Amino acid sequence: MGTNMRSKWWGWGAPEKSYDLSRKPYFWPYLNNRLDIPENPFLFPPSMEKIDLPPTYLPVNTLNRLKSRLPPGQIFTDRESKLTHTYGKSYHDLIRIRRAIFPVVPDAVVYPETEEDIQAVLRWAKENGVGVIPWGGGTSVVGGVEAFRLKSQDGLIVIDLRRMNRILKIHKESLLADVQAGIFGPELEEQLQEKGVTLAHYPESFEYSTLGGWIAARSAGQQSTRYGKMEDMVESVRLITPAAILETPCFPAAANGPDINQIVVGSEGILGVLSQARIRLKVIPGRKFYTALLFRSFEEGVEAVRKIMQSGIKPATVRLSDADETEFVFALREAKSGRFSSSLQKFGMKILGMKGFLPEKRAFLILGLEGEATSVRNEWRRIVKMLHPFSPFKLGEKTARQWYDHRFENPYLRDTLMNYDLLVDTLETATEWENLWNLYRAGRTAVLSACDTLQIKGIVTVHLSHAYPTGSSLYFIILAVPHVGKELEEWWKIKKAASDAIVSAGGTISHHHGIGLDHRPWLKQQMDGTSLRLLRQIKQTLDPNGIMNPGKLLPD
Amino acid sequence: MGTNMRSKWWGWGAPEKSYDLSRKPYFWPYLNNRLDIPENPFLFPPSMEKIDLPPTYLPVNTLNRLKSRLPPGQIFTDRESKLTHTYGKSYHDLIRIRRAIFPVVPDAVVYPETEEDIQAVLRWAKENGVGVIPWGGGTSVVGGVEAFRLKSQDGLIVIDLRRMNRILKIHKESLLADVQAGIFGPELEEQLQEKGVTLAHYPESFEYSTLGGWIAARSAGQQSTRYGKMEDMVESVRLITPAAILETPCFPAAANGPDINQIVVGSEGILGVLSQARIRLKVIPGRKFYTALLFRSFEEGVEAVRKIMQSGIKPATVRLSDADETEFVFALREAKSGRFSSSLQKFGMKILGMKGFLPEKRAFLILGLEGEATSVRNEWRRIVKMLHPFSPFKLGEKTARQWYDHRFENPYLRDTLMNYDLLVDTLETATEWENLWNLYRAGRTAVLSACDTLQIKGIVTVHLSHAYPTGSSLYFIILAVPHVGKELEEWWKIKKAASDAIVSAGGTISHHHGIGLDHRPWLKQQMDGTSLRLLRQIKQTLDPNGIMNPGKLLPD
Ligand SMILES: Cc1cc2nc3c(=O)[nH]c(=O)nc-3n(C[C@H](O)[C@H](O)[C@H](O)COP(=O)(O)OP(=O)(O)OC[C@H]3O[C@@H](n4cnc5c(N)ncnc54)[C@H](O)[C@@H]3O)c2cc1C
Ligand SMILES: Cc1cc2nc3c(=O)[nH]c(=O)nc-3n(C[C@H](O)[C@H](O)[C@H](O)COP(=O)(O)OP(=O)(O)OC[C@H]3O[C@@H](n4cnc5c(N)ncnc54)[C@H](O)[C@@H]3O)c2cc1C
Repeated sequence: MGTNMRSKWWGWGAPEKSYDLSRKPYFWPYLNNRLDIPENPFLFPPSMEKIDLPPTYLPVNTLNRLKSRLPPGQIFTDRESKLTHTYGKSYHDLIRIRRAIFPVVPDAVVYPETEEDIQAVLRWAKENGVGVIPWGGGTSVVGGVEAFRLKSQDGLIVIDLRRMNRILKIHKESLLADVQAGIFGPELEEQLQEKGVTLAHYPESFEYSTLGGWIAARSAGQQSTRYGKMEDMVESVRLITPAAILETPCFPAAANGPDINQIVVGSEGILGVLSQARIRLKVIPGRKFYTALLFRSFEEGVEAVRKIMQSGIKPATVRLSDADETEFVFALREAKSGRFSSSLQKFGMKILGMKGFLPEKRAFLILGLEGEATSVRNEWRRIVKMLHPFSPFKLGEKTARQWYDHRFENPYLRDTLMNYDLLVDTLETATEWENLWNLYRAGRTAVLSACDTLQIKGIVTVHLSHAYPTGSSLYFIILAVPHVGKELEEWWKIKKAASDAIVSAGGTISHHHGIGLDHRPWLKQQMDGTSLRLLRQIKQTLDPNGIMNPGKLLPD
Repeated sequence: MGTNMRSKWWGWGAPEKSYDLSRKPYFWPYLNNRLDIPENPFLFPPSMEKIDLPPTYLPVNTLNRLKSRLPPGQIFTDRESKLTHTYGKSYHDLIRIRRAIFPVVPDAVVYPETEEDIQAVLRWAKENGVGVIPWGGGTSVVGGVEAFRLKSQDGLIVIDLRRMNRILKIHKESLLADVQAGIFGPELEEQLQEKGVTLAHYPESFEYSTLGGWIAARSAGQQSTRYGKMEDMVESVRLITPAAILETPCFPAAANGPDINQIVVGSEGILGVLSQARIRLKVIPGRKFYTALLFRSFEEGVEAVRKIMQSGIKPATVRLSDADETEFVFALREAKSGRFSSSLQKFGMKILGMKGFLPEKRAFLILGLEGEATSVRNEWRRIVKMLHPFSPFKLGEKTARQWYDHRFENPYLRDTLMNYDLLVDTLETATEWENLWNLYRAGRTAVLSACDTLQIKGIVTVHLSHAYPTGSSLYFIILAVPHVGKELEEWWKIKKAASDAIVSAGGTISHHHGIGLDHRPWLKQQMDGTSLRLLRQIKQTLDPNGIMNPGKLLPD
């Protein structure tokens, strides 16, 4: 493999790590109360050897031609390379892995080390009608890296960027850095922070995703409310396309016609391979202040967040959970007072209820402020004033620190739950403030009635996590108990119902995960025909033979 | 004409207004000292009647077909309509007006009232091979609205949007508004501010330019450092193109592939006519604090501004003048203490010099903070600390208020100077901080040596007015005394030398004025071939017959 950055091929994160429920006594009772959880886990990932691999599609001679054009040690065709490069990390992906469903796998995985290597691969793929999937961390949750080959294609390969992982230059005076696309989050931040700067892009998938994947999928980090999404963080990109290299100029701003950067950002590998980018950095904030608050209702919380967002303050994080999610969060609290909120322990859940923070309504908020110390203090003072009419309960900094310190760990829990064959999926959308309730209700109702129709039990929890003066994202987490063996079919019914509802209710089909394969059916309803035609034309210009990430993003 | 929003056809602004130099006793002496100003003004605008109009190009029958398709009262072919829709407001334009050079004028000016009207015009233009120039306020300074017809075209018309000037809806809860493209700055802000909101987009041309023009040219207001450029202010657009209508969706953010908005923003009329947009508003800031400071050198000032911009503070305005511009600004101070800075009057210029603020080096800064009162106070406190090492001289709020209150008046001065046949032009570029000095020197040197070569006297003053954490704009003002009768030729030599130098030094050919006709030769060096091909393809898709704003933006 390319580097020693390895993760579970069948689930999330470090192979030796799993979610620690041992100190969380409230979680299983909560879940058992809401869902019919099987008594014992039974759905485990298969061993690689047992999986039926489809036959190699690509003729050996064709592959040999590629070998002759690349330095040795870049092409892998072993079983492990193929299996670890077939799916991303969505529920849809992981359930297929557990069920050993591998109808298509890539014929080879290539690890280029230079732009010339990438160009050689694309030239070869063009000549030979081979599909090419650019691969960053492979954490896509929308089928963005799924092994999908067009009927017309004679093979399918993955270009895994992980060997192109260097910071080429940090321009400290200008707060910019030239960075290769294959760098992973931790590698990037470590080197930047050594120099006193940061990108401050922290998606939950931070540890296992790459700069190239973030740009290609328009990713949003957990601090995006202050620092922006990836589209805001890119000054210039280099994209190796089958037609030519595209490179955008390096200006802080310009009025030189349309902004080509914004065609490349979000292109999800269908136009070419991002080799590097010049990214906009920030000075490491002097103060990070995170606190947790409890509102009497999600409605009140939303109103408060809107006020904050429209006041000119840019919190780093606002993460407001609805009642169902608040219950979930509380169920995940630890037994010992040291770990979860001590003030919450003190007052106790019952007293909270008596104060009007009713379990069926209350809403949990993580609020994070970052910046220079006096600014943060001033912002917090202003926020306290704004919050006064809502008189939220202050859970405090300790509770928030719990969230902050463990903010990359939740994905591990999904794997544990999947051992019990639970369906665990997420949907993320966004809309303007005035349409938020409509969208919230539509999404929830769609999921719950889909579960009803399927006669399965389900929970849907919602939070708002990326906010703007004009609106907000909404993030739905779905937990359900599908009929054993019918996971895929039932997942799709829920996903379809929810996505239909979200789109009809005026939400975007994706706020930060992207389109990939899974959201493709809805893009047509999100873009007018003219814009779609433009996109197709752009693809045609840069990838005339249609080899790049076949089947992704563009609807049929 | 369409509305009663009228301005001088041969110069800037309200016909009855001109720049008041009567209370500014230092200005003429300053100018006479630096340049050989003719004793009396002699180059006046011609009267409309005296101008030789080229023959109408468009066959009468063709025009009649358009008349039959539009409501009455929308098509004008009179002399005044043509002459007032031939040029924008650049020096290049105004000198041609004064010299009565009108080789091409539009054959007609159309004032559509609905999208259907626009569509009817475009359909007709397509059928008849007629070029179409979308016209907002006509304040372009890059030849963006110049009457330019391709050889292959059988006529040229202007679509003047001023009758489509309504705010369709203010979405107060979401801080958004749906606004027609032809609305002028003052109309827009008046109606928004009545509702407690603002766009806060104040280009110097604010009073006579339109929303559509701002979007089409990627305009930047004088408060863009806080509120962003037009590309940041647009949530959704409607563009009527010859091929179809293009409408982008309304989401606060999304990950639905490339951002089509950013193809429309900056399209300068070459893809279609913007009919309306959903724009992002702000709550009117509770406090506006503007103050003026003097640094010992432009270098120190730049260093201070960079520090501020990288500290997380977003001032509304930072406008830092180099020594030559500082001298110019001081020369424009008023005689009575009440008007210009009283503290400056008190200390007197001499004492300033003794304190190390030497005339040949000192740099004038306007710093504006906007927002909630306690935030502004905190930001100012932090800035004072940051400025400490530079110990700038505090000219204070009064001086800044002078600038603020008169910030839309400078363009009138150009007209006065042009009466003396002075060349008055501006160049605006931007680059990363680490390249600022290089660009600054290159631009200045190019202008001054071009003047030398031409054996004319010239002044070039520079300010930095739109700043970013990563870099800044640089704005060059050129004053020169061309040889009488050779104004156009000498202007072009200076413009070309400066633009060549700016581009070679890594600056953008435009930070906010756009490309139009005048910057077209340099765009090729600013975009790689692949991006240019993409742009051409996009144009081909939306405007297959090439009728939209012929000759603009895209290099040959
Ligand atoms: C548990 C979990 C949590 C997540 N949390 C977040 C979150 O908080 N915020 C968020 O935005 N996303 C999140 N995601 C989604 C995912 O991590 C993001 O989409 C991320 O940007 C993908 O990066 P990656 O490097 O893994 O890209 P991949 O998954 O490898 O690829 C994603 C897409 O980009 C393309 N691509 C990748 N690299 C390149 C390249 N160099 N050139 C061209 N195209 C390329 C691929 O072809 C694919 O279409 C999460 C995913 C998981 C599984
Ligand atoms: C004295 C002076 C000061 C200026 N100061 C600034 C400043 O501070 N900041 C700044 O950004 N600019 C400034 N400018 C330049 C100019 O005002 C801007 O470019 C402005 O955005 C133009 O707006 P407008 O409505 O006048 O557009 P126009 O000049 O009419 O048109 C500009 C371009 O946009 C196109 N266009 C106009 N309306 C539409 C539409 N509805 N649909 C499609 N295309 C359209 C035109 O075809 C043309 O290409 C200044 C100009 C002058 C003369």
